Amino acid sequence: MNLVLLCGGIGGSKLALGLYQQFPHANLSIIVNTADDVDILGLHVSPDLDTLIYTLAGLANRRQGWGIQGDTFQALDMLKMYGHEAWFRLGDRDIATHLARTHWLRQGLTLSETADRQRRFLNVSAQILPMTNDPVRSSIETHDGWIPFQDYFVRLGYTVEPTGVRLDGIDSARAPTEVFESIARADRIIVAPSNPVVSIGPILAVPGLRDALVESSAPIIAVSPIVGSQAVTGPAAQLMKAVGMPASACGVGIAYQDFLDLLVVDASDSQAQTDAALMGIEARATNTIMSDARSKRRLARFVVEASLS
Amino acid sequence: MNLVLLCGGIGGSKLALGLYQQFPHANLSIIVNTADDVDILGLHVSPDLDTLIYTLAGLANRRQGWGIQGDTFQALDMLKMYGHEAWFRLGDRDIATHLARTHWLRQGLTLSETADRQRRFLNVSAQILPMTNDPVRSSIETHDGWIPFQDYFVRLGYTVEPTGVRLDGIDSARAPTEVFESIARADRIIVAPSNPVVSIGPILAVPGLRDALVESSAPIIAVSPIVGSQAVTGPAAQLMKAVGMPASACGVGIAYQDFLDLLVVDASDSQAQTDAALMGIEARATNTIMSDARSKRRLARFVVEASLS
Repeated sequence: MNLVLLCGGIGGSKLALGLYQQFPHANLSIIVNTADDVDILGLHVSPDLDTLIYTLAGLANRRQGWGIQGDTFQALDMLKMYGHEAWFRLGDRDIATHLARTHWLRQGLTLSETADRQRRFLNVSAQILPMTNDPVRSSIETHDGWIPFQDYFVRLGYTVEPTGVRLDGIDSARAPTEVFESIARADRIIVAPSNPVVSIGPILAVPGLRDALVESSAPIIAVSPIVGSQAVTGPAAQLMKAVGMPASACGVGIAYQDFLDLLVVDASDSQAQTDAALMGIEARATNTIMSDARSKRRLARFVVEASLS
Repeated sequence: MNLVLLCGGIGGSKLALGLYQQFPHANLSIIVNTADDVDILGLHVSPDLDTLIYTLAGLANRRQGWGIQGDTFQALDMLKMYGHEAWFRLGDRDIATHLARTHWLRQGLTLSETADRQRRFLNVSAQILPMTNDPVRSSIETHDGWIPFQDYFVRLGYTVEPTGVRLDGIDSARAPTEVFESIARADRIIVAPSNPVVSIGPILAVPGLRDALVESSAPIIAVSPIVGSQAVTGPAAQLMKAVGMPASACGVGIAYQDFLDLLVVDASDSQAQTDAALMGIEARATNTIMSDARSKRRLARFVVEASLS
């Protein structure tokens, strides 16, 4: 069975882990957002790739969702002595990842090749596919102007109101061949409950990628990261409003409507199915809150085994 | 009082600390070897600069002589998971130094400017002067061919026999203006008990630098790193033999004879003064083994206050 997952960081990685553990014999290919990559002191940091790979490798810090379990911050403490602002919390073991990646990139590897090397060294058997090897960077518009995504997300802790989202570099970005190949051979395509604007949005915006989904004969199932009018985690609701999408599960369905076969909404979200029906979106409810290994695997089974009309 | 010290890594930093503590009101300028700088995973590592600055800042690991007291090795452990050989023991806090320096260099600062910024952030009041901002790299000839200095020194732990030493880039290297200025205004110039071939040798080989010492009217005092036929630490004796210098305190004096006013030899080295006298080198004996703060300061006082004939 060929499974494809479109995935951002923390929320998406939970479903990725569920799929990885529930279907160990499937060919799992994960297309990952790279628009929140950031240069920190010359290091190429790929937060979504790392969160995903650390999660699948069993290294992730589960409580905070990002970084490595038990990591220390000696280098960051010392960097503060050198005047570094240090709002991006780079752990010591995490820095090793960025050093290795940046070194490999400088040796001429593509980002895809570094991701493949990284996951192999960490014994992850899923195929990890950055959405592009070209630089695409999200920026967020605020009342004080445009700021890079990580400034909004990490430095400001998404406490300022976003009024727009921009994807620099997206028009000239190309998806690697393996991304299109994974979609072409997919038996089922799953859109993780990741931020539809800054995680899934950039993936869909890579030229040709959305068309490939529209043309795919495989069922495409999305899990809403929105329950009621709130995101399970993160600033998805605010960012959806900023780009004019309804901040609701139905809004997620609308954003994906041209390629979506089934929208999975949370069982507690009584409005979601009604709204979806009005919009002509097939929706089904289940518990989408992945609080432990069991609930991750259960949701993975639900999205893979859901029969479609 | 304007003091200038020519300095390599571990041995030289001990005398630097003695001078720094014994003469807190002096203008101390330290000209530092950069020929054993090395690129590790894209990081610009300057072992002698860091050993010196960490020592003066009170951060150095005194037992091993290099690195930072209490440093951890989380990043290096993780780098091993990514296939990195990890023979160069980068500590986590030490990595912060290399990240900051490499970042500053990429922003367009010279190595001198990064060293000045580094020592200021770490509250070191001495002037730290890399011998050059141009890339000069020592290579060691062995029976298996030429290898970079750090391969010989760290990876192989100087267990192979050196048969030659080469300084790549030295002919086109230029000393920064501040180096010449410090020599021009010096009241006394001290050559640290550092390796005369791969620490002091590269400094003297920077075009114009040796001439500036020859022409200086300031007394120039060198402390021998060799006692009897052995180096106090490191491979100085083997490397002196490799380049045809007598591996003795007198050999050190001969190497510096054109600019030297006084050679300080260890009191236990009964041959040294006799040999020096035969060669027409003025030598004086004292305890040169700097095992604690007191002996560092005592030697510093000796070299600064020695009256010359």
